[in-house]
Amino acid sequence: MKKSLVFHFLLILSVFDAFQDIQAQPLYSYVDPFIGSVGKGHIFIGPSCPYGMVKPGPDNNKASNSGYEPDTTVTIFGFSQTHVSGTGGGPKYGNISIMPFSGDFNQITQTSLRSNEIAETGYYSVLLKKWNIRTEITTSPKVAFYRFKFQQNNKAIKIDLGQFLGEKAILDSREAQQFVGSEIRILTDTEVEGYSRIRGGWNNGMAYTVYFHAVFEKPFQQFASWKGEVIEASQSTQYDSGQKTGALFNFDNLKSDSLKMKIGISFVSTAKAAQNIRAEIPHWNFQQTLAETQMKWEDLLHRIQISNEATKDQKIMFYTALYHTQLMPVDRTGENPLWTSSAPYYDDFYALWDTYRSSHPLITLITPSRQVDIVNSLIDIYKHDGYMPDARSGNYNGRTQGGSNAEVLIADAYAKNLKGIDYGQGLMAMIKDATVPPGGNEEKEGRGGLTDYNSIGYVSDRFVRAGNRTLEYAYNDYCLAQVAKGLNRMGEYHRFMKQSENWKNLWRDVEDNGSRGFIMPRDAAGNWVDSIACDITNGQRNYVRYTPLAQDWPNCVCWWCGFFYEASSWEYSLSVPHDVPALIEKSGGNEAFRKRLDTLFDKGFYNVGNEPSFLTSCLYHWIGRPDLSSSRTRQIIDKNYHAGRGGIPGNDDSGSMSSWLAFHMMGIYPNAGQSFYLITTPYFKETIIHLENGKKFNIIAENLTEKNLYIKSATLNGKPFTQAWIDHEDIVNGGELVFILDAKPSKTWGVEVLPPTIK
Amino acid sequence: MKKSLVFHFLLILSVFDAFQDIQAQPLYSYVDPFIGSVGKGHIFIGPSCPYGMVKPGPDNNKASNSGYEPDTTVTIFGFSQTHVSGTGGGPKYGNISIMPFSGDFNQITQTSLRSNEIAETGYYSVLLKKWNIRTEITTSPKVAFYRFKFQQNNKAIKIDLGQFLGEKAILDSREAQQFVGSEIRILTDTEVEGYSRIRGGWNNGMAYTVYFHAVFEKPFQQFASWKGEVIEASQSTQYDSGQKTGALFNFDNLKSDSLKMKIGISFVSTAKAAQNIRAEIPHWNFQQTLAETQMKWEDLLHRIQISNEATKDQKIMFYTALYHTQLMPVDRTGENPLWTSSAPYYDDFYALWDTYRSSHPLITLITPSRQVDIVNSLIDIYKHDGYMPDARSGNYNGRTQGGSNAEVLIADAYAKNLKGIDYGQGLMAMIKDATVPPGGNEEKEGRGGLTDYNSIGYVSDRFVRAGNRTLEYAYNDYCLAQVAKGLNRMGEYHRFMKQSENWKNLWRDVEDNGSRGFIMPRDAAGNWVDSIACDITNGQRNYVRYTPLAQDWPNCVCWWCGFFYEASSWEYSLSVPHDVPALIEKSGGNEAFRKRLDTLFDKGFYNVGNEPSFLTSCLYHWIGRPDLSSSRTRQIIDKNYHAGRGGIPGNDDSGSMSSWLAFHMMGIYPNAGQSFYLITTPYFKETIIHLENGKKFNIIAENLTEKNLYIKSATLNGKPFTQAWIDHEDIVNGGELVFILDAKPSKTWGVEVLPPTIK
Repeated sequence: MKKSLVFHFLLILSVFDAFQDIQAQPLYSYVDPFIGSVGKGHIFIGPSCPYGMVKPGPDNNKASNSGYEPDTTVTIFGFSQTHVSGTGGGPKYGNISIMPFSGDFNQITQTSLRSNEIAETGYYSVLLKKWNIRTEITTSPKVAFYRFKFQQNNKAIKIDLGQFLGEKAILDSREAQQFVGSEIRILTDTEVEGYSRIRGGWNNGMAYTVYFHAVFEKPFQQFASWKGEVIEASQSTQYDSGQKTGALFNFDNLKSDSLKMKIGISFVSTAKAAQNIRAEIPHWNFQQTLAETQMKWEDLLHRIQISNEATKDQKIMFYTALYHTQLMPVDRTGENPLWTSSAPYYDDFYALWDTYRSSHPLITLITPSRQVDIVNSLIDIYKHDGYMPDARSGNYNGRTQGGSNAEVLIADAYAKNLKGIDYGQGLMAMIKDATVPPGGNEEKEGRGGLTDYNSIGYVSDRFVRAGNRTLEYAYNDYCLAQVAKGLNRMGEYHRFMKQSENWKNLWRDVEDNGSRGFIMPRDAAGNWVDSIACDITNGQRNYVRYTPLAQDWPNCVCWWCGFFYEASSWEYSLSVPHDVPALIEKSGGNEAFRKRLDTLFDKGFYNVGNEPSFLTSCLYHWIGRPDLSSSRTRQIIDKNYHAGRGGIPGNDDSGSMSSWLAFHMMGIYPNAGQSFYLITTPYFKETIIHLENGKKFNIIAENLTEKNLYIKSATLNGKPFTQAWIDHEDIVNGGELVFILDAKPSKTWGVEVLPPTIK
Repeated sequence: MKKSLVFHFLLILSVFDAFQDIQAQPLYSYVDPFIGSVGKGHIFIGPSCPYGMVKPGPDNNKASNSGYEPDTTVTIFGFSQTHVSGTGGGPKYGNISIMPFSGDFNQITQTSLRSNEIAETGYYSVLLKKWNIRTEITTSPKVAFYRFKFQQNNKAIKIDLGQFLGEKAILDSREAQQFVGSEIRILTDTEVEGYSRIRGGWNNGMAYTVYFHAVFEKPFQQFASWKGEVIEASQSTQYDSGQKTGALFNFDNLKSDSLKMKIGISFVSTAKAAQNIRAEIPHWNFQQTLAETQMKWEDLLHRIQISNEATKDQKIMFYTALYHTQLMPVDRTGENPLWTSSAPYYDDFYALWDTYRSSHPLITLITPSRQVDIVNSLIDIYKHDGYMPDARSGNYNGRTQGGSNAEVLIADAYAKNLKGIDYGQGLMAMIKDATVPPGGNEEKEGRGGLTDYNSIGYVSDRFVRAGNRTLEYAYNDYCLAQVAKGLNRMGEYHRFMKQSENWKNLWRDVEDNGSRGFIMPRDAAGNWVDSIACDITNGQRNYVRYTPLAQDWPNCVCWWCGFFYEASSWEYSLSVPHDVPALIEKSGGNEAFRKRLDTLFDKGFYNVGNEPSFLTSCLYHWIGRPDLSSSRTRQIIDKNYHAGRGGIPGNDDSGSMSSWLAFHMMGIYPNAGQSFYLITTPYFKETIIHLENGKKFNIIAENLTEKNLYIKSATLNGKPFTQAWIDHEDIVNGGELVFILDAKPSKTWGVEVLPPTIK
């Protein structure tokens, strides 16, 4: 990694030169961390390094996944050091909360309204109105760097280890974070350390511990610490007795109004947290750390350059999308409290169900070495923890929403020829998923309902989420089979290719809104299930008819208990990414399929805000109508995405929605697990991908205007290119893909050579 | 608990008075911690409080389960603070190793031969011959107290955090303990703290962390610390970078030759470890701590007093057995790093498969409040960790050998009317075991092979340990049913009573050595399996015939992969503790059953050193021949147990063998999970059980001599008592059970009213 970083840094510098004319400002300045902070985006707005372990930011809503609440009438109660970005469900993290304040020193709760809020790449700033304290934050990978400016006397800082997100009054509530323990020790008049130990959260994880070591730039004058509700003056240690602890520091001796503070965190120990400070920020130069973090982002953002003619909003949308994609998973190499190994360690896969579709393919394009690390980390988790995660957070596999989609990442890496991965071990991890039932509540890892799937060929209605589990397992099986084939494991290849057709076992010949054939629930004996038990009124259970538009969850059954997870059969029945031709045939042929897609989009059965339909707007490609894929996709983007704070139409899910947008703005979109990208009309006249291998690939859209939105013809490296898809290899070899755009759909381009179906 | 402790302390004092004439010395002085240290016993010889968390002791063999190797030609390499007692398989613990030494200060490895070894209740002492250093150890529940006497210059102490038991060269070896991380910090010239983080071991557990805080009585003169192989002088911190660390302390400034050291441990944090020292040993009085620990044991040992006429060896065997029974599980209340709750927290159930049969019934008799805490801890583990353990160590459920035997503890508590347990929750935990497959490798918790068991009524040969799993699940189901019945859950009662007959599904009508009918392997289609795949020679797999004496493990298949776990069908086919009459009928009636038992014992098919046959010598009771139970049991004891160091004939397994012995010396033996005890001829003329409820129960054996070993008649509270079993209620109500002994077996006593079979 180091070698490549240096290499790319040099590359940036030269690129800087070359593009100085078309690029007046650094790309990181186009990142607007507020995009997605209003509405459903659930974006984390604080500073973070790429894949950064520490994510310091304001908390003003304990029920918010990012800790953040845009409503400025809601008070901030602290700045905690750990957050996730874009997630839904019960919150996770929000640990090691600090708060500057003035006034009553002997008061644990300290809240303030805010103003003058700024969020930029690597930087956050806010004025705490109650005391006129400006708080600025920047960060290195594992250390948060704070700068406070006080304007009143009684300058004080609180460190609160009992504060965290998603706490509920009822103990052991599902998805709630729950307190386990905390400890604080004041070491000197500038150093404090301790930890907060929490369990639960969205993935119902076992306990994780966030250790911290904090250093003040200048000594405090007095301090107090607390346990439970009791504040004790000058008590330097509050040992862990399963109660909430924290400390208050008074800086009234401070000569200037300014105070800096560094907080190193670690998932291993307090001394490691201190070491992280020494290793990353051994100085007090706030600007230097900020500049380093900006450069880390600049390096990555520069890997994809877009034409300077793009509008400012487009630039903001595009680079913010790249930024969002690279916030998570989190690089915790050297911070694994569970085992040691030579493999990298990543956490906060939250969840692969969301990110496998476009986030990881985008990471693969920008920094394949990073994706290799991530895949190796998944295989290492399998080796030491039993299964690869579908979701993992706080060092704990927890939650599968449908498939065992880590398998898609391995297949994607294999198909794209990423080096440095032990695919033999990867295949073993995949086979474990596919053959060994995970047990317990079957939602922690592996494949729930596997006993059904492996015996009757589908997950029957006796298991929850039977519909999307069956569909996703079929695709996971395809992925497994392809890797097996590559490794010449033909027994597994044949078995799992056959199983990859299992989606057909739930395909029922019913009609709905003019289309025929849907994935529908079936019992273990093979009978179709027509109705489902729903609410109870007057002591009687009501049954509702199950239709392709039915949503049994969350009203009839729990959120996790429906036939499909978070979408209807209208959406999921189009989810066969490995065999779209068979899907088209099942649906009644090209015309019926086109009509079906049109109905989906026109009648609003499509949900822009969730991942199951990520590929759907490109399915027109398989009936030789890439023009319709282009127009549909553009329609979706223009209607739902924008450069404002509410500019992400659903939970960003660790950058999933953002990466979907970024790909489509470039005009390519991956079919994750396979090696090709579908081509649609780009938003930019020119896109340059600076590949990690040193080559570059240009995508040029000639004649692109607001009216010329259809690809009339194309050339690849000067030769005619009539297909509406391109293989990963053709991109990484470098070159130039040129589109000639026109106001009308082409009747020839992308019609003949359809996207490949590799058996 | 506190109330009852105080109460019992007063009780002891009064008892002391009353028995002064017949008891010249405290009972703890009869405990010989060396019993079981030679041979298969695997006993921990160091000091420990009852259920004590810290178990400091010498380590001279990393492959030894207790760390201890009796061979005095093997050098001691350290004294670590955590051990288990009596276990087999891969070792666990051996953390926070210390070593006094003289000589070369800059040398990490320090070993010495030993002499003058003493082990007594709460006390261990040894002379390290290389440097003539005497090391003495005593302990409180969570703090080890060392006293060193040096005789050479260059007095030094090493704290080695990279040392632990069961490490193997091959990473990720099954059952091996593996290093994760360590950290050391020298705080002042008398205080050191840090931790060692280890994973694996016998139960293949995830990482556990043992934190410590050590205090020297006097300041050291200089110090060095190390990481990996590199020693750094005066380096006060070695942060955790996944490498082995430790520190060396030089006390050449020491005026006297004596140095004391306290080491508090914690599974939560270093500050908690320091707090444990403050709470338990806030002084430097070694004798005081020793006396307190002796008193804790005296309290418990005094609950069962035996006639002073017992031989010294009998006293030593009996009280050492009581001692061994109460070393584990370990009380870790307040030390749970995974969750907080109001329930107690116990760890090192190692394994319940071993201890449910006699250890927990003995604990129930001595201190039912302790057993209530243990059961509540099991239910709390189910609530927070998914399943009750069958084995748990290092805060991790891991390993089931056969059944889900925590269920037997709940049924035993319910049958014996223990108060303070939420049996509704307990039933839920049992039902979880019985209905939800555990998944993964199916050996972590719950019931492996449950899909077979719950569909075809037995575990087929496609699962390992199918034989004893089926037998044990049948008994677990019986236990579940009985609790369900008590809670008026008649649906579950009927279902599980029916399932409790599942052992019959593997009962095959074959003859072996003159007996008919054995538990034999069967495939999922219902066919009996006649042969099993075994070793491979010349590329060909050999099949061996499966017979009731066959042991497919460990030669044909792995230790854990046989049809039975650690015993043959001859032993296991007698394991139907809930329906011995049906077993007798299946075996061909009383005469055939007697012949079968005789064959088992006479031909050496019985294994004295393992738990599966614990009840077997008492099965004669069910054919009205308690005299044969008595003579067989006495034969077994006299031949295999003695007061010497090799006096335990198998792994003591946390006191299992010891508790079996203790019960039989008293003349009662429990049928765990049910409320009655089988009566055999006691070893003592009088046994007084001081019950926790304040009552006492006397067992008196009149006319007991070396020849008079048969019970001729009996009275309970003065009334004739003709049955050879007694209910728990009759004991806890207090009273007097008097036997009249005779030289010949009685033809009437114990013949009519057979032990109960509760449906």
